[in-house]
Amino acid sequence: MFTKARLFTPGPTMVPEEVKLEMAREMIHHRKEDFKEVFSSVQRKLKILFGTKELVLVLTSSGTGAMQASVSNLFSPKEEVVVVVGGKFGQRWREIAERFELKVNVIEVEWGKAVNVEEIEQTLKKNKNIRGILIQASETSTGVLHPIKEIGEITRSKDVLLVVDGISAVGVSPCPMDEWHIDCLITGSQKGLMIPPGLSMISLSQKAWEKAKNVKKRDFYFDLLKEKEKQNAYQTLFTPSVVLIRALDKALDVLLKDGLDEVYRKYWALTCMVRKGIWAIGLKPMVEKNYTWGLTSVLLPKEVDGQKLLKDLKDEYNLILAGGQDKLKGKIIRIGYMGDVDWIDILGVLSSLKEVLDRYVKLDSKPNFLEIAVSAYKDGLKNYGCTRSM
Amino acid sequence: MFTKARLFTPGPTMVPEEVKLEMAREMIHHRKEDFKEVFSSVQRKLKILFGTKELVLVLTSSGTGAMQASVSNLFSPKEEVVVVVGGKFGQRWREIAERFELKVNVIEVEWGKAVNVEEIEQTLKKNKNIRGILIQASETSTGVLHPIKEIGEITRSKDVLLVVDGISAVGVSPCPMDEWHIDCLITGSQKGLMIPPGLSMISLSQKAWEKAKNVKKRDFYFDLLKEKEKQNAYQTLFTPSVVLIRALDKALDVLLKDGLDEVYRKYWALTCMVRKGIWAIGLKPMVEKNYTWGLTSVLLPKEVDGQKLLKDLKDEYNLILAGGQDKLKGKIIRIGYMGDVDWIDILGVLSSLKEVLDRYVKLDSKPNFLEIAVSAYKDGLKNYGCTRSM
Repeated sequence: MFTKARLFTPGPTMVPEEVKLEMAREMIHHRKEDFKEVFSSVQRKLKILFGTKELVLVLTSSGTGAMQASVSNLFSPKEEVVVVVGGKFGQRWREIAERFELKVNVIEVEWGKAVNVEEIEQTLKKNKNIRGILIQASETSTGVLHPIKEIGEITRSKDVLLVVDGISAVGVSPCPMDEWHIDCLITGSQKGLMIPPGLSMISLSQKAWEKAKNVKKRDFYFDLLKEKEKQNAYQTLFTPSVVLIRALDKALDVLLKDGLDEVYRKYWALTCMVRKGIWAIGLKPMVEKNYTWGLTSVLLPKEVDGQKLLKDLKDEYNLILAGGQDKLKGKIIRIGYMGDVDWIDILGVLSSLKEVLDRYVKLDSKPNFLEIAVSAYKDGLKNYGCTRSM
Repeated sequence: MFTKARLFTPGPTMVPEEVKLEMAREMIHHRKEDFKEVFSSVQRKLKILFGTKELVLVLTSSGTGAMQASVSNLFSPKEEVVVVVGGKFGQRWREIAERFELKVNVIEVEWGKAVNVEEIEQTLKKNKNIRGILIQASETSTGVLHPIKEIGEITRSKDVLLVVDGISAVGVSPCPMDEWHIDCLITGSQKGLMIPPGLSMISLSQKAWEKAKNVKKRDFYFDLLKEKEKQNAYQTLFTPSVVLIRALDKALDVLLKDGLDEVYRKYWALTCMVRKGIWAIGLKPMVEKNYTWGLTSVLLPKEVDGQKLLKDLKDEYNLILAGGQDKLKGKIIRIGYMGDVDWIDILGVLSSLKEVLDRYVKLDSKPNFLEIAVSAYKDGLKNYGCTRSM
């Protein structure tokens, strides 16, 4: 009763009110004009979001479904790919590629670090059979941005497809598909797009479409060539999640209202605020360089039990944060701030986090840590574009 | 302005108000207790709906995704199956089975007729390699109920899995999984469950789970063994469509409030009403025997252009009906009445249909066709259970 419920997980995010109300409207039929109107509007706006001239396909699945779609539609069994594994979602790329019988060359990256571009360059030089690179733009399990733009400079002139899971990057930080020479860009609905989970989006470059034509079909529900044919006519191959597509239409209006760069500027400034606030509390962010926007992983002092901390924040302050996954379980917390969230909400997280931590550990906190955080936010708004490292 | 919009398609259906409002609520996180509570409630109620003791898995996909899941998880390449093809959705079974490289034995059935049980029996006798039967409980493209119960009597003692697409049957007419010895029952969210599209459900018998263990995994997003493990703990393998799962919870409350048999009684009575009303207008239903409940296909006189008729009904009366698919395009209309619909809505359909038809063709209509329809509805409510043929 004293504190409103707030969601600070790296997806799903809090949903803007106009989007929520859109979902409460009466059903429309997915084969009629009403739907085609909505879907054509969605597609027009998704091209802006993805930074592409290509069609952005909308699939009724979670993001993992689109990841499967890229693997099953773009590669044949025994074809070689490089998979960058620096966290749980890199692992997922690997599992999918192996399930579909690709020959996988793994580049292991320390969790919390970005991949070294030279390592990718060397791997491609040594092995001329590699036909694709599977990577995350943002590795959500740690909060790292991989150097997609730089990798695109390498793959653009080669017979290698750059396949990017942009699930927690698209709509949060810049990831322009055409400009960065991405051949396949994927996102999900519940992160930067700030609608509930249940939809994924995928767009292919001309180079990728050409390759897809020569791959034997091994998937039925995720059949991108057939899906493209339908979606070019503002229809879907199978019955789509109509409610989420209408929500997407509204959410894209919100995102594009003042231009995408203002969205990125907001996430940049909130990231500055959270990182500086964490520092002022006496904690350390897990990732030092190339950190994700919209999500900060925080290293916990050894004395603190991550699960207990999350439970306290939930029980006492109605704040839902995420813990670490796999080998990071209990060792970090992840503060997500995408979607319908602002700097005032962040003040609540920092204040509550400090209070709860004080019970378990003696921290070297600044007495004015909240004021420091607010200043960092305001600086972030101003210096966005000048510098992006802290 | 004069007539409210009404949806009479065989999915999506109109959605009850409490379900719509549920979808407008703030997000919850799918890995936390709030979600587990909802999902455990959903699973408990889905067992009642499916008539099974087994777990009913919820997948974030349209119904076709669950169809793919059954094929890719239950059968290996080159295994033989029988596919019953008597309409567009039978064709879909065939396409999926072929895509996953099964050896397909097709039993072609005249569109609008149910499969002959003896033909199935004979096919299984002649070919001992057959390991599965893929069939629809209700073939939505024509509106026919196949004799699932009778087929289950044949397969139950054999090494053959009965795989049933119950997408437009579950929650509309009886299809008790355990009692009828169904090994795999599938449904979608947007028919009898009367929530928007975007979720599918699938349940496997012990016999089917045993078989699944020995099938090499060829699918990643639809991995039923892994999904089962997660859903037993009220979690999902990948981020689920949270909004639709909450909607499902509410919708199941509505369906189970007075017992499932009352739901079936309603659809039976509405089916009597529509069929008798159609007859009283001077038209003929396409299906004479073994007709689907909740959906009636109506043969159009040759003089009438089906597409034009649907357009008139939409433009003048805000009524959305469905046309024929594939070879039935333009030749039939399909009146769907599942979900949040009642006999008064049906009066509007019959009245408008008659008025629009009168422009194109001279029909031998009864002057009191609406009263006749209402009587048929009331009779249907009374005689439900006594007779189910007209």
